[in-house]
Amino acid sequence: MLSRVQVKQIREKAYEYFEKVHIVLTNEEIESIEVADFGLDDIENTGLELLTYVNTDRYCAKEMVLFPHQTCPEHCHPEISGNAGKQETFRCRYGRVFLYVDGEKTPDPYCKAPKGSEQCYSVWREIELHAGKQYTIEPNTLHWFQAGEEGAVVSEFSSHSDDESDIFTDPRIKRIPEIDN
Amino acid sequence: MLSRVQVKQIREKAYEYFEKVHIVLTNEEIESIEVADFGLDDIENTGLELLTYVNTDRYCAKEMVLFPHQTCPEHCHPEISGNAGKQETFRCRYGRVFLYVDGEKTPDPYCKAPKGSEQCYSVWREIELHAGKQYTIEPNTLHWFQAGEEGAVVSEFSSHSDDESDIFTDPRIKRIPEIDN
Repeated sequence: MLSRVQVKQIREKAYEYFEKVHIVLTNEEIESIEVADFGLDDIENTGLELLTYVNTDRYCAKEMVLFPHQTCPEHCHPEISGNAGKQETFRCRYGRVFLYVDGEKTPDPYCKAPKGSEQCYSVWREIELHAGKQYTIEPNTLHWFQAGEEGAVVSEFSSHSDDESDIFTDPRIKRIPEIDN
Repeated sequence: MLSRVQVKQIREKAYEYFEKVHIVLTNEEIESIEVADFGLDDIENTGLELLTYVNTDRYCAKEMVLFPHQTCPEHCHPEISGNAGKQETFRCRYGRVFLYVDGEKTPDPYCKAPKGSEQCYSVWREIELHAGKQYTIEPNTLHWFQAGEEGAVVSEFSSHSDDESDIFTDPRIKRIPEIDN
């Protein structure tokens, strides 16, 4: 579990990435950057730093940071109470992000699954995004992503976001952040 | 009506603003920046430069440029065939944008309506956005906006966008761009 001090340090590090691409945030936003370790206690390898700009019942926009080789683990966004699952578009702003989705396995993919979690990564069609490139993920589609060696800043545009309903391949994962007080 | 040469020049000028804030676009995107003069043939005063990243039936994301004191004229997004009108969030990335919405008139507003079109601007509650600030416009709400003296770059996150259904206060306005071949 992350301590408050660790969360603060990681937020500061994430903000340095936003600064690299001249993304201006208010102080309140900087302090609300979400640090997700997915309950695996291995944030350097499996984790995500994100800021939600807006999340109405119709659309959502977020800005995400991945540190070098950091992975957002495999998951999908299922239908909820008869409503279509989340549809989302990732647009890379800085660095490179390697997105993996269902389909024919890419021979010799750039990324490796985080050590010890290999069995929780099942989709291997690789889509490489560098700054200015984007890709849209349809609802209920398994996907995961990992930053390249420089880390990455990625904008996410989507339908309404409801993290609690995400289904992760790794049964140990809890999406809702925990902080040690 | 804008000539192809004028459109090209305006696109290049708009791209300079995107570069100021390190927004990376592909060459194809640069060439598809929409130059909207709203059929008024006065783009320096009434106009908007915009790039649509994605527009699915659920959400939309655009990046907009306004040159110094350029105005996007008053309009609203009505209900379409029983579906709620467009809801949209403007987030300022560079410069200042002055947004005007329905409500108590702001005494001594920063902006003036474009000359000759004063009667087509009816809402005067001013919301000033500088880099890092955002505001959400509810459906079917009259609004217009104008950049400050440095121009502005503004991200728009929204529900599905259908420009053809916008209702402008100025009856002379045609939203669909015309280019002189």
